Amino acid sequence: MSKPLPGIDDIRNAAARLAGHAVRTPLLTSSYLDAVTGARVLIKAECLQRTGSFKFRGGYNAVASLDPEIRARGVVAVSSGNHAQGVAEAARLFGVPSTIVMPADAPAAKLARTRRSGATVVTYDRAREDREAVAAKVMAERGGVLIHPYNDASVIAGQGTVGLEIAADVEAMGLVPDVVAVPCSGGGLGAGVGVGMRATFRDCAVALVEPEGFDDYARSLREGRILANSSQSGSICDALMAVSPGSIGFALNLASNTRAVAVNDAEALAALAFAFNELKLVVEPGGAVALAALLTGRLDARGKTVAIVLSGGNIDGDLLARALAEGRDTQWRN
Amino acid sequence: MSKPLPGIDDIRNAAARLAGHAVRTPLLTSSYLDAVTGARVLIKAECLQRTGSFKFRGGYNAVASLDPEIRARGVVAVSSGNHAQGVAEAARLFGVPSTIVMPADAPAAKLARTRRSGATVVTYDRAREDREAVAAKVMAERGGVLIHPYNDASVIAGQGTVGLEIAADVEAMGLVPDVVAVPCSGGGLGAGVGVGMRATFRDCAVALVEPEGFDDYARSLREGRILANSSQSGSICDALMAVSPGSIGFALNLASNTRAVAVNDAEALAALAFAFNELKLVVEPGGAVALAALLTGRLDARGKTVAIVLSGGNIDGDLLARALAEGRDTQWRN
Repeated sequence: MSKPLPGIDDIRNAAARLAGHAVRTPLLTSSYLDAVTGARVLIKAECLQRTGSFKFRGGYNAVASLDPEIRARGVVAVSSGNHAQGVAEAARLFGVPSTIVMPADAPAAKLARTRRSGATVVTYDRAREDREAVAAKVMAERGGVLIHPYNDASVIAGQGTVGLEIAADVEAMGLVPDVVAVPCSGGGLGAGVGVGMRATFRDCAVALVEPEGFDDYARSLREGRILANSSQSGSICDALMAVSPGSIGFALNLASNTRAVAVNDAEALAALAFAFNELKLVVEPGGAVALAALLTGRLDARGKTVAIVLSGGNIDGDLLARALAEGRDTQWRN
Repeated sequence: MSKPLPGIDDIRNAAARLAGHAVRTPLLTSSYLDAVTGARVLIKAECLQRTGSFKFRGGYNAVASLDPEIRARGVVAVSSGNHAQGVAEAARLFGVPSTIVMPADAPAAKLARTRRSGATVVTYDRAREDREAVAAKVMAERGGVLIHPYNDASVIAGQGTVGLEIAADVEAMGLVPDVVAVPCSGGGLGAGVGVGMRATFRDCAVALVEPEGFDDYARSLREGRILANSSQSGSICDALMAVSPGSIGFALNLASNTRAVAVNDAEALAALAFAFNELKLVVEPGGAVALAALLTGRLDARGKTVAIVLSGGNIDGDLLARALAEGRDTQWRN
């Protein structure tokens, strides 16, 4: 018999654990973005979260949920860089060691910030090495508990607090959201946000936004079973290249009003340039895909109330400069 | 007999006018910034304000306060670029024409965004032309009401809503602020914020932060009379080069617990790189000086509760790239 799926009570418990540690990120508005899209857009700025992405929520909730004796042996994570920082910072706060397996080509900022939280970072070659094998070797040598980036009920419950907060703020504004759009890699954020939102807004749809070429979630939802991407590199969205949907989140997403759309590299870059120029927020490519789906019309939002999650802001300066240069002539005004 | 100075009731009236038009910007926290400074820091992110700076508040309040018949003839402003956008956007919302006199070397983003709000932009040479003379010529030719960037009671009342919001949020957090630090050019923001804060926290000090070489406010406060800067160009803080304190704000600041400190170009750039890397906020040089004063210790904050205003985020990408390159090796951790 399988474990029960994480529900709204798990998310509420996660919120209680996170209080005082995570940032209660603001739900922002931009009259210019509303004018450009023809929608009422509510922007959940998770780039302002501790460690620069929503991943701190799930990482902290997972570490906090461990039995103290087990936690004391340390934690291990495999991550492209945001879950890395979340788990490393959570481990630091609990005073336990962390070892993080990261691709050698992760953004410099992500590597540096993970080390800053006190983690031992073990790098691997994304194209040539199997990260699961690298992680297994680390576990065998060092021990510790593996905190999975998305296929873990306590991680999903932590990410769900994003939805809980959006729902509370939207309700306080007297609005009813038609859809919430979130960046999607393994699907943990989307699954948690869906549960968190629907406790208040039963009919709110969830749109998962993937990078083009990494549309495993869209294909999996269509076929009703978990399918994998053929590639593990090649998107500018370094945070969104999970091989396939996690089974826990997939069960939640499949059972609800969830769909998936994809955006390409140029669209992600243009969206992060928009975030820089118009929203004054620093957003990384993977963190900008929901905004990209909105700006490009791949997510049909005209006349609707739409919440979008800007999920992370850990971008290196040179990539931002490239995005600003390439996006200089993009005209969004409809 | 001179007009009474703007007070807390004027600020509350401004807040009522601004409701639904201005962004109620968040008061953010960063555990990393707290660790670096040894202070409890509360970050008022006015870079997230409509038009990208706090200036929309004062501009809108001033335009809204005009007699409708007078307003219909249009408004004029002289501005380095943020007041420009604030007044232009306010005029657009009221459906009246605006003419803005701006230095030709203003950041490209500021010029473009002012025009985008429908303003007619008249440029002048900052080093060779007298901007007051240019403005007088524009007024003579086109008519309209001049909205002064800082020496105007309704503008100061509008900026004061920043202080009102900080005070409300700090109170809700159960904290008592020792000092609020704000960027300073003509002194309107500091004066308004001081009045807005002290209505709730009577003993809260105000620290005005100026660019080095443009310390007219510090010298004026010291001598108890309005003194001017000798230069009108030469700081990277393009928004903070007013010639001398405005008399209305100066009267308010002189009568209260207000002091002024200065930061140099390199410190402003390092602070905006910090805002990019750690806070994930886009801040322009002039908008980052209060953060710079905190990070450098020019504002002594250890053990204190300090609110800082990040007043604007209208920076061009190439300058940000320079700040990130120069600030790459700055170590802030104490």
